[in-house]
Amino acid sequence: MFTIKNHLEVKNNHLLIGGADTTALAEQYGTPLYVTNEARIIENFSAYRKAFPKADIYYAAKANGSFAIMRILARQGAGTDVFSYGELYMALLAGIPREKILFNGNSKTDFELQKAVELGVKVSVDSQDELHTLSGIAERTGKTAEIAFRVNPDVSTPTHPKISTGLRTSKFGIPAEEVVDTYREASGLPGIAPCGIHCHIGSQILDTEPFVEATQKMMDLVKEVVELGIDLKFVDMGSGLGIPYKKGEQTPKPQDLADAILPVFNDRTQALGTSPKLILEPGRYIVADTTILLTRVNTVKKAAKNFVGVDAGFNLLIRPAMYDSYHYVVVANKASSPPEEIYTVVGPICETGDIFAKDRELPRVEKGDLIALLDAGAYGFSMSSQYNGRPRCAEALVKDGEADIIRSSEGIEDLMAKQKLPARLM
Amino acid sequence: MFTIKNHLEVKNNHLLIGGADTTALAEQYGTPLYVTNEARIIENFSAYRKAFPKADIYYAAKANGSFAIMRILARQGAGTDVFSYGELYMALLAGIPREKILFNGNSKTDFELQKAVELGVKVSVDSQDELHTLSGIAERTGKTAEIAFRVNPDVSTPTHPKISTGLRTSKFGIPAEEVVDTYREASGLPGIAPCGIHCHIGSQILDTEPFVEATQKMMDLVKEVVELGIDLKFVDMGSGLGIPYKKGEQTPKPQDLADAILPVFNDRTQALGTSPKLILEPGRYIVADTTILLTRVNTVKKAAKNFVGVDAGFNLLIRPAMYDSYHYVVVANKASSPPEEIYTVVGPICETGDIFAKDRELPRVEKGDLIALLDAGAYGFSMSSQYNGRPRCAEALVKDGEADIIRSSEGIEDLMAKQKLPARLM
Ligand SMILES: Cc1ncc(COP(=O)(O)O)c(C=O)c1O
Ligand SMILES: Cc1ncc(COP(=O)(O)O)c(C=O)c1O
Repeated sequence: MFTIKNHLEVKNNHLLIGGADTTALAEQYGTPLYVTNEARIIENFSAYRKAFPKADIYYAAKANGSFAIMRILARQGAGTDVFSYGELYMALLAGIPREKILFNGNSKTDFELQKAVELGVKVSVDSQDELHTLSGIAERTGKTAEIAFRVNPDVSTPTHPKISTGLRTSKFGIPAEEVVDTYREASGLPGIAPCGIHCHIGSQILDTEPFVEATQKMMDLVKEVVELGIDLKFVDMGSGLGIPYKKGEQTPKPQDLADAILPVFNDRTQALGTSPKLILEPGRYIVADTTILLTRVNTVKKAAKNFVGVDAGFNLLIRPAMYDSYHYVVVANKASSPPEEIYTVVGPICETGDIFAKDRELPRVEKGDLIALLDAGAYGFSMSSQYNGRPRCAEALVKDGEADIIRSSEGIEDLMAKQKLPARLM
Repeated sequence: MFTIKNHLEVKNNHLLIGGADTTALAEQYGTPLYVTNEARIIENFSAYRKAFPKADIYYAAKANGSFAIMRILARQGAGTDVFSYGELYMALLAGIPREKILFNGNSKTDFELQKAVELGVKVSVDSQDELHTLSGIAERTGKTAEIAFRVNPDVSTPTHPKISTGLRTSKFGIPAEEVVDTYREASGLPGIAPCGIHCHIGSQILDTEPFVEATQKMMDLVKEVVELGIDLKFVDMGSGLGIPYKKGEQTPKPQDLADAILPVFNDRTQALGTSPKLILEPGRYIVADTTILLTRVNTVKKAAKNFVGVDAGFNLLIRPAMYDSYHYVVVANKASSPPEEIYTVVGPICETGDIFAKDRELPRVEKGDLIALLDAGAYGFSMSSQYNGRPRCAEALVKDGEADIIRSSEGIEDLMAKQKLPARLM
C-alpha cells in the first residue's frame, strides 16, 4: 500500500479512495462515477479551522453543491456562502444555521432578495441598485436586512482570467473609491443594517501575496467605514486558495494563508479599537481533492496521438475544456504499473475541446481499463450538463471503505422529463 | 413594424418572435425563457433542402435536442446525426426513421454500439478498436452493422480551436492515410458492412473554401475505397456552416455551400461510375437563429463599466463564456429606442467569465427591462447546467403568434431530485 496523491492509496495495483477499491466501485455502480472521500472533506475543513481558529468558515457551496457534502460540512460547524435561492434552500435543508449564511452575487432577482430577507440571512450587496431594491423589500416586509457590500479591491491575481474576480474591470463589487460613500448612503436607508464588508479576488490562486494585498486594501476601507460610525461585525475575505492539481506541486496551505494575512488583519483591527470577525469562503480547497471521477475506457486509437476514449465527457467535468485545467490521471486498475506510453485522454463529446488530459505517460491502456481523474470535487459535478444527450452520472460517498450513492445517475427519462409537445406536433 | 435581425420584428417598440410579443411571453412564462420560432426552423431546413435537393439532410441533434424541435424536423423529412444513446432514443421517439440516422462519436460505449446494432442504425466508426467491438457485437446478435468511417481529412478551418474538428491532431476520425487499409480490413470482418464514409471539419465556419478542400480530399478517398470493390452508398460531409451572429455580417448560405461543393462532388462521383448519396449534418444553421433567450434585468451598476445584471447566466448559455462567442443583444421592451449608452450584459454566476455581451450600445437600460440574446438556438439550452444552484429555465415554441411551453422550467426540487443521504448523515 502506498499513497499516490493526497489521500489516495494504491493496493494490489488498484487505486483506493477512502479505503474502497475503485475498480469494485466502478463494477458495482457503473461508470462514469464521481466518488468522494468523506474523511478528506473533514480533514480539509479542519485545516482551515485550525489555521483560522477565530474565523468563521463559510463553505462556498458553488464548488460542490451535493447535499451530502453540505450536510457533512454543516455538522462540522461550517457556514456557507450561497449564490442563488437554490443554494440557500439546500444550505438551510442541510442544517447550516441562517446566521452563518451569506447570500452573495452580482445579479440577484427580487425573488431571491425577498427570500434572503424573509429567511433572515445576511446579504452581500453588489450595487446601489440592489441596495435600494433590498431596502424596499425590507421596508415592505417590516424586516431589517443585514448587509455587507461586495468590494472590488482591484487586486490582480495570477490565475485564469475567467476566474480572476478582483480586477477593477470585473463585474463584481463596488469600486473601492465608492465604498465609503455607499456605506454612508446605506446607513441612512430604511430596513438596511450595514454590518460587514466582503471581497473575493479570484480562485485557484497559488501565492499568498494577492491575499495580503487584498487584506490591506480591505482594512483601509474598514477603517474608513468604522470612522463613519458603522459597526462592522465581519470582514469577509472571500476565498481563492488554490490546490496542487499537479503531483508534487507546492501550493500554500490554509496555515500559510493564515500566516500571511492574520498579522495584517489582527494589527489593523487592533488599531481600530473594534473587533470584526474574519470570514473566509473556501470552496475548492475544501472539496477539490476529496473527489475523483471514474471513467471507463471505450476505445484506444493510434492516430496523430494515442487517444484514450473514455465514457465521461466535458458534460461531466468541464474544467479542462473550459479553463485548460490540469487533472492528474491514474489508470485505476493499473495504478502501480510503470508508465509505458504517452496518451491523450478524451471524452465522447462532439467537440475537439473535449480532452481531459494531454500527453500523459501512463501504463499501457486498453479498452475496459478504468481511468480516475483526480481532484474533481470542485467545479466538477456542479457544472455538469446533459450536452450531447447524456444523462448525468451518479455520485458516491465513501467512508471507512464503504460507499453510499449520494446522487443517482440520470436516465434517458430525465432528458425527456420536462419536455412536452404542443397538440399540433403530437 | 420592421425587421431587426433575420425573422425578428419590432412593433410598438417591442421585439416580436414568430408574431408573438416577447414582453408578453416574459410576463406570462417568466424569465429566463428560451423562445423558438417554429416557422424559422422550417425555413432554414428548407434552404438546405432546396440547395441540396438530392442530398439527405441529417439534422445534428446536439445543436438543440429539444424534443419538439426534433419532431418538427422529423416531419420535414430530416434524418439525424446522433452522438449518444440519449440522442438516438429521442430521435426515434420523434419519428425520425432509423434508415435516416447515423450514430456518430469518437468514444461510444459497448452499450451504445449494441443499441445501434439492435435498432439497425448506421454507425460512423472512429477507430479500429471500435470496429472490432462492433464486429463482435454484430456477430453475437446475428445482425449486420452498416458503417461509415469517420475520416480525419486534415483540413484547417478558421474557427474557434475548440470546435475545429478536422485537424490532423484532433481526436476525431481515422487519419486519411490509414483510411483505405481500414476499409479493406472492415470488408473482411464478420457482421460489418462498410457502406459510407464520413467527415466533419468543424463548426461556425464562415467560408466555403475549407468545405471544398474537404470534399476534394474525401472524394480522393472515396475513389480508393470504391476501387477496393466497396460499394459506398453515402458520403457524409458533416456540417459546419456558420451563421451571422453579428448583424449585417455576410456569411455563406446553404446555396453558396452547394454552389461550392456540388460541382466537385458531382464531377468526382460521375468519374467513379457509381452514385453515392450526399449526406449533410447541419446543426447550427438549422436552429441557431430560430431562438432567443429572454432574460430580465435585475440590476444596473456603474462601475469600471456599465454593467447590466440579468437573470440568465452562463449556466443557460455558455457560448460567450466558453468560446468568447458574440450574441446580438436587443432590449426587448425598447426595441426601437435609439442607443444611448455602452453596456456590458452579465449573468449572476460567480465567475468573471459570466458575460453575455461586452460594450454594446443600447437604449438606456433599467432594472426590470427585458433583454433578448439572439441566435441562441444552437449549443444554447443543450449545454445548460444547474451551476450555482440554478434550476434550468423553460423553453417556449411560437407559431403564428401563439406560444406553447415545450420544456417546463425546473424548480428547487429538481436540484434535489436525485440526491439522497446515507443513514449516518440523516
Ligand atoms: C464570492 C465567492 N466566494 C468564494 C468562492 C470560492 O472560491 P474557491 O473555490 O476558490 O475557494 C467563490 C468562487 O467563485 C466566490 O465567487
Ligand atoms: C459529426 C458532427 N456533425 C455535425 C455537427 C453539427 O455542426 P454544426 O452545428 O456546425 O452544423 C457536429 C458538431 O459538432 C458534429 O460533430
